[in-house]
Amino acid sequence: MPDFTDRLRPSQPDGPTTLARERGQSNVSVNELGQHLLSSDGFLERQTRILPILRREPLFSKEKQQNLSRPDRFKLALARAKLLRRLTDQYKWSHDDYKMAEYLVDDVSPYFLHMEMFVTTVREQASKAQRAYWMPLIESWKIIGAYGQTELGHGSNVRGLELEARWDNRTKEFVLHSPTLTASKWWNGSLGRIANHSIVVAQLLLPKAGSPGQYLSQGPHQFIVQVRDMKTHQPLDGVVIGDIGPKYGYATMDNAYMLFDNFRIPHSAMLSRYSSVNPDTGVYTKPERPALVYGSLTYVRANIVHHARLVLARAVTIAVRYTAIRRQFQDRDDKNGPEISVLDYPTVQIRIFPLLATTFALHYTGLAMRSVYQSTRQDVEQGDFRSLAHMHSMSSGLKSLCTMLAADGIETCRRALGGHGFGGGSGLIQLNNDYLSKPTVEGDNWMITQQVAAYLIKKMAAAVESPSTPGADKTEAGFKEFIQNKQGSETRHSGYDVLGKDQDIVKSFEMRATALAYDVYEQRVLKKLSWTSLLIQLHKLSKAQSQSILVGTFYEALSADSTLSSSNKIILRDLFRLFALYTMENEGYEFFCCNAVSQADLNNLSARVQDLMTRIRPHAVKLVDSWMIPDYLLDSALGRYDGRVYEDLYNRAHRLNPLNRITFNPNYWEEEIVKGSGDNGSGILSKL
Amino acid sequence: MPDFTDRLRPSQPDGPTTLARERGQSNVSVNELGQHLLSSDGFLERQTRILPILRREPLFSKEKQQNLSRPDRFKLALARAKLLRRLTDQYKWSHDDYKMAEYLVDDVSPYFLHMEMFVTTVREQASKAQRAYWMPLIESWKIIGAYGQTELGHGSNVRGLELEARWDNRTKEFVLHSPTLTASKWWNGSLGRIANHSIVVAQLLLPKAGSPGQYLSQGPHQFIVQVRDMKTHQPLDGVVIGDIGPKYGYATMDNAYMLFDNFRIPHSAMLSRYSSVNPDTGVYTKPERPALVYGSLTYVRANIVHHARLVLARAVTIAVRYTAIRRQFQDRDDKNGPEISVLDYPTVQIRIFPLLATTFALHYTGLAMRSVYQSTRQDVEQGDFRSLAHMHSMSSGLKSLCTMLAADGIETCRRALGGHGFGGGSGLIQLNNDYLSKPTVEGDNWMITQQVAAYLIKKMAAAVESPSTPGADKTEAGFKEFIQNKQGSETRHSGYDVLGKDQDIVKSFEMRATALAYDVYEQRVLKKLSWTSLLIQLHKLSKAQSQSILVGTFYEALSADSTLSSSNKIILRDLFRLFALYTMENEGYEFFCCNAVSQADLNNLSARVQDLMTRIRPHAVKLVDSWMIPDYLLDSALGRYDGRVYEDLYNRAHRLNPLNRITFNPNYWEEEIVKGSGDNGSGILSKL
Repeated sequence: MPDFTDRLRPSQPDGPTTLARERGQSNVSVNELGQHLLSSDGFLERQTRILPILRREPLFSKEKQQNLSRPDRFKLALARAKLLRRLTDQYKWSHDDYKMAEYLVDDVSPYFLHMEMFVTTVREQASKAQRAYWMPLIESWKIIGAYGQTELGHGSNVRGLELEARWDNRTKEFVLHSPTLTASKWWNGSLGRIANHSIVVAQLLLPKAGSPGQYLSQGPHQFIVQVRDMKTHQPLDGVVIGDIGPKYGYATMDNAYMLFDNFRIPHSAMLSRYSSVNPDTGVYTKPERPALVYGSLTYVRANIVHHARLVLARAVTIAVRYTAIRRQFQDRDDKNGPEISVLDYPTVQIRIFPLLATTFALHYTGLAMRSVYQSTRQDVEQGDFRSLAHMHSMSSGLKSLCTMLAADGIETCRRALGGHGFGGGSGLIQLNNDYLSKPTVEGDNWMITQQVAAYLIKKMAAAVESPSTPGADKTEAGFKEFIQNKQGSETRHSGYDVLGKDQDIVKSFEMRATALAYDVYEQRVLKKLSWTSLLIQLHKLSKAQSQSILVGTFYEALSADSTLSSSNKIILRDLFRLFALYTMENEGYEFFCCNAVSQADLNNLSARVQDLMTRIRPHAVKLVDSWMIPDYLLDSALGRYDGRVYEDLYNRAHRLNPLNRITFNPNYWEEEIVKGSGDNGSGILSKL
Repeated sequence: MPDFTDRLRPSQPDGPTTLARERGQSNVSVNELGQHLLSSDGFLERQTRILPILRREPLFSKEKQQNLSRPDRFKLALARAKLLRRLTDQYKWSHDDYKMAEYLVDDVSPYFLHMEMFVTTVREQASKAQRAYWMPLIESWKIIGAYGQTELGHGSNVRGLELEARWDNRTKEFVLHSPTLTASKWWNGSLGRIANHSIVVAQLLLPKAGSPGQYLSQGPHQFIVQVRDMKTHQPLDGVVIGDIGPKYGYATMDNAYMLFDNFRIPHSAMLSRYSSVNPDTGVYTKPERPALVYGSLTYVRANIVHHARLVLARAVTIAVRYTAIRRQFQDRDDKNGPEISVLDYPTVQIRIFPLLATTFALHYTGLAMRSVYQSTRQDVEQGDFRSLAHMHSMSSGLKSLCTMLAADGIETCRRALGGHGFGGGSGLIQLNNDYLSKPTVEGDNWMITQQVAAYLIKKMAAAVESPSTPGADKTEAGFKEFIQNKQGSETRHSGYDVLGKDQDIVKSFEMRATALAYDVYEQRVLKKLSWTSLLIQLHKLSKAQSQSILVGTFYEALSADSTLSSSNKIILRDLFRLFALYTMENEGYEFFCCNAVSQADLNNLSARVQDLMTRIRPHAVKLVDSWMIPDYLLDSALGRYDGRVYEDLYNRAHRLNPLNRITFNPNYWEEEIVKGSGDNGSGILSKL
């Protein structure tokens, strides 16, 4: 319905004018930088090719989805997920194409676990015969599977799982049984409403030789189990399954609970590539290397690390564009001037620009993580397991740090947006709600840092053992050098010039991580302190080590690059410095105590950080443009490329908000809550 | 429907067993501490009296509200809010009783602005005649009002508002007009769907004497305006209003947009207690003291500061109870022992216990803030304005710091809960979503710290001016002492014994704030640096000053108290030390540079913090019990008093989740998404 607001325009200078000016003042080549960041693996080509296909489908419109109830939001997600698969068939999309479409639609797919953990587990853990039977069913989606590991009372500690799989030698079956309520499977995605099959992880119980009626646990093993009827889609007898209910985010995912009551499954259900039970004798064969069984967790962690850059880039894109457009207050020393862009305030810059720099740090480290994963994987396939521990440590530490940087970064950006950051037009609500799962899933961010520390303690012990032999890798070599210097009493300030030489910044980060590793080694190995009492220190060590990796890979990537123009290179070097020095300032006292930086340099850090932000300021909009995140994915009035912030906010409120189609009755002495319609609002009571 | 899961119980030791053991091991007197914290103003009596009345009403059940769509969630909130008013009449509740009921039901009420800003503004800014006319209508809820100040393009900077109120001397009316889209009122609560009246803040435009057709702005003024028809409840001609749509939280609040098209309101609409327009001559009388006009903002900030303790206490209650019950992993040095409570891990303690201590710090500072507000208010009523600047600075700095502590604290607690912290049974989802508005509303947390810094710079300038005269208050006295010592070149380390003397902890915090105030004074006043370039430092100064207030009031409250038993006093002193030393450790380098702590003490802080946490550990459950937060308010499976965590989580999933009443069809080659029911799921498309 037309009204007088149709002819109104925002006050000047409006968003498009401001962004044009911002883009005009920078010599950053967006195209070159975008190619540099996103052309590997055909990411950019794929995004450009698939986006228009999605935009044509009304089902993929994001305009009103924030207004739906959880059940309706789930229905929408399922309809979209089915359509994505049909489009995959129609356009003959590769798996990467499909993943791109899923990324752009931005729903966590109800089929996600089928496509990831279910298929991966069968591929990696099933015997050849099992694979031959199951893989065609999985790939055609004739069956839909999930992955049932965690339980109501048991998360990180897989050995503590309660669900039992007892071998019945008489019938040659396993009997799945949940002895307690806490044994209920819990959180298992895609299983609450959708999957008809699942990998089920249970304690394998085998008859104890010579003690009839007694059983011995061989620890958790994986089984492939049909859990729902293929026609009625009801749970099979002896199985209770359902969706666990609303969560912080992930509204579109049917995370499940699942319990079994003496539920019998055949011998062939146990995934038996590495371990097996002889059906005739009931004798167990254990895996040669237990680490192989849970290798896919490392894969998932490496992916999370690699993905973090795109998540944070979304938030930073929105924050930079909007705070450039948003004006508030005159300069206090020029009270007759115009209102200034809030992005010109150092208090806004200090929240957003270090995060802008972080997107690039995450990018280069994500690439490094992926290449370490791939080369380790190759080694392992060839029977060489030496690099496994390093990869495991690196992926654990980086998963912890990078998801923390991205999750906290989204919220920091949101708050920097002022009031509109709290509104639905920010584009950050679902992103934040969904991403807040990441600090916890696939290894809790505080828990898994122990693995990094344990690795480094071992490395340090080896360095102390033989400080003068060459180190097997960079970390070892650094540790040995530290020990040699220590023995020579050369531990006083190391003289790094962190304000003058980029290479020295890297060394300073390495020095701090090494010194902390030695402290922890000393307390654990020499002073024999209990592991638990050291946990906080172990966490700090992991953080220091991972920050050192981020800083080191960022520096190395810039040093090795020969493709970027010098103007882009200059600004990337400033971003490197900003990321590193801002991080150093926040942990200043730790660097100081580790003799990794001089007090004089430390005192100058905040001025230097502010100076770097001033240098980066003119390029901010073009730098976020380089991440090439399409408006469709951003789904943000504040962050749209063309800058029409206020028109979009108003459109969402005035034309798209279903609440405005209802007229409410404010009179408290009348029970009806809705006026002038057939519905008096009492329907709400029946929904309770 | 009964099934085999009905007979299942959680594994042992279960929640009730664990909490009984926790409560048995501590000598904290919960009753005494609860009275100490909550008996003032009859808070606890009121909670006890009103809770059972609410529990009897099915409408107030929180069981399924997370599953509703935004429109339905709003309907529910309105029905509840009406019932609350009817109960108020029925039980003759006082305003405080009503507020208690609202707090327990935990919906942001659609009538909130009517009850707060609307009535307060009329009471404080209307003339006697205006009050006589409007107050009876307001108190009887015959009219419902809102407060329309912020605009789409204008938040903190009230002077930048665009809406015009032009005086028409011919008709003796004001003409409200929105010249642009950014002039649209925005965010105004209770106005989107409910209110029929509103305070409207607009630029008062008066004819320029001697220049016909030209107007002069007298700045923003307040008008009381009817905006909707009282019968049809449709917006009046020339007014466009609506709800702005879904937000991060506040689903139950109808935040509005509102625009005017040459909309005429009578002369009597302008609130004229302090300023007025002569209807005959069009001549303007300005307020004697402009500060009075926006005094209610300080009131709201003081309330936010006082409320923060209860918000954080909710999160900490949930976190402490659940992490005591939750067990995960054996001790690494005792691999055959039982799984241990995650609350026994220092890495969990370091996240939760400083926040537990913070609830008490917030409590005492909240009380201090309230008493400063009340005494200043009395002074002002008697014409004495000297304490106004102090109160304004204190409330700005504390609003910024305390809402940050509470908002970040909720999320820290949530992450410490592991996987279940992401679930709907955490009780933290709505709390977090709603509370995340607080760092931004009523003065952005980064913006308003300038006011603290400006105040302290003035104080420091006065101290430098005459260092040897007595200071007018504690801050001034401290500044003068600092200047005297500085002149005597006694600035090297001050010798505070922060690990030995509690009083020295307070002094150390004061020293750091004072030293930072001097730095800022030096840069701004002596070196004439631009205000904008100093913003980050100003923010740090405000934070340091506010932390000093928190530490100082906590210490003084314990020193002054003569009612607590010694066992309670001992644990409160440990909480004081934990709060202060943990804060100090996090800002360690700043304290070090300000000579507020010795390097030796600084190096010992983390061991001391861990030692304090070990001392607090046995009392943790009883300490959160002392906040006496009822299960009904917590609405948390994880945090319930009786510890039946897993039974409650399972009940929410298995019996209360509406998604489980729908059977979905997972076959992608069939478009239907729902199987075996009349609804094939295509209804979802019509909602898009």
